[in-house]
Amino acid sequence: MKFSIKEIASLINGSVSGDSNIEIKNVAKLEEAKSGDLTFLYLPAYEKYFSTTKASAIIVKTGFSKSRSDITYIEVSSPEKAFFAILKKYFTPEFPLSGIDPSAFIHPTVRLAENVAIGKNVVISSECKVGANTKIFHNTVIADNVLIGDGCLIHANVSIRENCILGNKVIIHSGTVVGSDGFGYTPNDKGEYEKIPQIGNVIIEDDVELGSNVSIDRAAMGSTVIKRGCKIDNLVQIAHNVILGEDTVVSAQTGVSGSTKIGKHCILAGQSGLVGHIELGDNVVITAQSGVSKSILKPGYYMGSPAREIKTAQKIGVHLHNLPEYAKKISELESEIKKLKEDFKLT
Amino acid sequence: MKFSIKEIASLINGSVSGDSNIEIKNVAKLEEAKSGDLTFLYLPAYEKYFSTTKASAIIVKTGFSKSRSDITYIEVSSPEKAFFAILKKYFTPEFPLSGIDPSAFIHPTVRLAENVAIGKNVVISSECKVGANTKIFHNTVIADNVLIGDGCLIHANVSIRENCILGNKVIIHSGTVVGSDGFGYTPNDKGEYEKIPQIGNVIIEDDVELGSNVSIDRAAMGSTVIKRGCKIDNLVQIAHNVILGEDTVVSAQTGVSGSTKIGKHCILAGQSGLVGHIELGDNVVITAQSGVSKSILKPGYYMGSPAREIKTAQKIGVHLHNLPEYAKKISELESEIKKLKEDFKLT
Amino acid sequence: MKFSIKEIASLINGSVSGDSNIEIKNVAKLEEAKSGDLTFLYLPAYEKYFSTTKASAIIVKTGFSKSRSDITYIEVSSPEKAFFAILKKYFTPEFPLSGIDPSAFIHPTVRLAENVAIGKNVVISSECKVGANTKIFHNTVIADNVLIGDGCLIHANVSIRENCILGNKVIIHSGTVVGSDGFGYTPNDKGEYEKIPQIGNVIIEDDVELGSNVSIDRAAMGSTVIKRGCKIDNLVQIAHNVILGEDTVVSAQTGVSGSTKIGKHCILAGQSGLVGHIELGDNVVITAQSGVSKSILKPGYYMGSPAREIKTAQKIGVHLHNLPEYAKKISELESEIKKLKEDFKLT
Repeated sequence: MKFSIKEIASLINGSVSGDSNIEIKNVAKLEEAKSGDLTFLYLPAYEKYFSTTKASAIIVKTGFSKSRSDITYIEVSSPEKAFFAILKKYFTPEFPLSGIDPSAFIHPTVRLAENVAIGKNVVISSECKVGANTKIFHNTVIADNVLIGDGCLIHANVSIRENCILGNKVIIHSGTVVGSDGFGYTPNDKGEYEKIPQIGNVIIEDDVELGSNVSIDRAAMGSTVIKRGCKIDNLVQIAHNVILGEDTVVSAQTGVSGSTKIGKHCILAGQSGLVGHIELGDNVVITAQSGVSKSILKPGYYMGSPAREIKTAQKIGVHLHNLPEYAKKISELESEIKKLKEDFKLT
Repeated sequence: MKFSIKEIASLINGSVSGDSNIEIKNVAKLEEAKSGDLTFLYLPAYEKYFSTTKASAIIVKTGFSKSRSDITYIEVSSPEKAFFAILKKYFTPEFPLSGIDPSAFIHPTVRLAENVAIGKNVVISSECKVGANTKIFHNTVIADNVLIGDGCLIHANVSIRENCILGNKVIIHSGTVVGSDGFGYTPNDKGEYEKIPQIGNVIIEDDVELGSNVSIDRAAMGSTVIKRGCKIDNLVQIAHNVILGEDTVVSAQTGVSGSTKIGKHCILAGQSGLVGHIELGDNVVITAQSGVSKSILKPGYYMGSPAREIKTAQKIGVHLHNLPEYAKKISELESEIKKLKEDFKLT
Repeated sequence: MKFSIKEIASLINGSVSGDSNIEIKNVAKLEEAKSGDLTFLYLPAYEKYFSTTKASAIIVKTGFSKSRSDITYIEVSSPEKAFFAILKKYFTPEFPLSGIDPSAFIHPTVRLAENVAIGKNVVISSECKVGANTKIFHNTVIADNVLIGDGCLIHANVSIRENCILGNKVIIHSGTVVGSDGFGYTPNDKGEYEKIPQIGNVIIEDDVELGSNVSIDRAAMGSTVIKRGCKIDNLVQIAHNVILGEDTVVSAQTGVSGSTKIGKHCILAGQSGLVGHIELGDNVVITAQSGVSKSILKPGYYMGSPAREIKTAQKIGVHLHNLPEYAKKISELESEIKKLKEDFKLT
């Protein structure tokens, strides 16, 4: 791939300084860029790499101090957005796959729309429906009566259980399981656990992305729902009957327990956990490793286990850090009071 | 599916009020039920949905205030158990699969009992044995010399390594790995880690259920053992040589380190962790996100990281919450003592 | 398998006491050993099993009190290393697999070195290269242009995405995904997240082992790098652009966030988490369940969430344990001061 500086500057509406006739072959991070690469700078932490980067061109914020003369600058109002526009236009991966591989099994009752691509050893069971331009990669298994929308990308070794529903442009990474049974048991008279049939399904709406090795359980009854635009990272657990609101982000290794309902535009940072049967309002952010044990309806940042409003949690954190000092002070105060009492009695 | 109210009332020994001639088509949660649905109420938190549910019939506790006249009531002593009985009788999923799919590979030395069902692209390696009525779904791989009991249900894309043993009625969900190598290394003179051969296996006893994307490592020597009736949720880590006692429940994303031995009827709640080489007695409950660093032999609830008896942990939690106030008080006490000392000297 | 005591003693340079003519059939842990087994003792916690072990022979530290006369002793300077040598020589599993299974798909452009073994239903896509003596087990999927070194062992149901690179003697357990997309989005004007193309790869160097159900994301640009000799346990999350230094160990369910760089010979214990864009120096040990939110360059042990030097963390932990007592003391001090003030005024 080759691009001219002019072509790039035109796409991102940038102002060029330096040699505008160079040819760009690739994009790279500042510290890893080679000659012929285009790079970008927007995080202050990375400015230290500017003086030594081998990139041929760099996208910077308008007004950036152009201290080097051996690099071509493209100044824009938002280097981050500009770089994203370039990645999106020139570097979106294609995931080549076409046609229905003869080693795939497609049940005769399955309805495939136009331009569906099915990889090797894929199993698509009875009554499934696959929308236009959807690609399903090798060794993935789709159980009965799964409805898959248009333009989805399902990677290798994914498992989707019966009756689940996927919207359009859903991306699912390898190793992920959609629709495994919810974790529901009831103890019998002997104290043994009997399995409660899990007869619901999972609904995944448009533009959702699920990372690798994610587990999303089917509802006991009704549906576990991942609403439009949710982004779920690797190794996340979504239990039965959970509802995730639109555009909510769930980072890696987070777990949401059964029947918990989460609002729109929430962020659950990595390794956080939510108990079951609670509710999170819209725009609630849970920081990493936090544990949410009660409903949180007010937008804001929450931290700790149990999770508290972040200012409260941070305040407690500071005092916790000082705790050894407080213990010492208490001990000193005891001595002083003891001495005061003695002195007082002496007078 | 259609059921009469009388049929249902008879099954659960319930008392009917209202129209007993209606026909039930499905079951649903209170807040999601439609006309023709049977629902149930036993959690107080869900009573708020009673006035608006569209269900045609509801199972309630004897004595429930029957304030609506447009719904049929079935009163029973335990709505939860009654509803479970209905689910179990009418709604237990069947997982249709029969025969040995021609695309499956069954090594000639494998012994299959009657009525075994093997899905597409399944691999069953040499010397394996599969018990009667067991179903193994598509793309699952069973390595050499694995013994599988009767009536097991192994979902798609499961991996079971050599020499592991499964009892009867074991359920394994997709993406789960049984018998991966334990995490054992020894440093050599250069400080590099050399792999210690992991030559044991995993034994999974009757009535165990493993969720999706679970990892259960084989023993270094001997066996990792999951005893009868254990229920293990998604994304759980069970390390080498762990022993889980009968009817123990392990919630999602929990990890048990090597050689730890857990008693019967324990509960390890979500995202909890146990260090290696310790022991938990029977009836020990570890709350979510707790970290257990020492053996716990006394039954009860334990919380926190490090885990303490729950009352102690909660007490510390309350004081932690008050810590900013304590710090303020310490500061005030310092001032007061300073003043007292001054006043005292003045006299 | 059968070994003579003399053969074993010779291998480990041990001194035999007792019957040196017995034949050893297997190895086992002290508490599980049967007649004919060789066992070993080096952890003090296991000494309690010595008096009752049924093993026929035992490897002990030179000078061990040989109180039983019905067992053959082999004394060595390091029983642990001696036992490892025996396991390595006689018990290293072979993982029998040979040739290219006809059900596997090998793209015509793939270059296979000598003695490669490919299992059933494996997919190896275009432009891949597989080194000598590498084994790839059933139902594993390798995407385009993946380079795999010599002597690798890739278990069943693994997924490796396009352009990733594996060194020599890499072991990957089942369910693991190498090269899934990094978790990168940018919000558009409507607040919806747009996917940032993840165009980098994963480089896994020689002698790395990845457990089961591990997720290693490809870099946004450049490479996620797992350097020589790293050992990664089950269910670990490695985000995009992370770099793990040589001989670093990552225990189960740990997560490392994007662009974080970890030094050599570090240990990240189970369920620990690291935020993104930070750095760990060499020889840093993070204890279980800890959360690292800032760079740590100084070697040593770090504990807690947020992680602190272990002595500081332990000190805070002790004071936290005493917090209820401190609260009581503060309350007592308040009373005493109140009384002192009253007494003082009275004089």
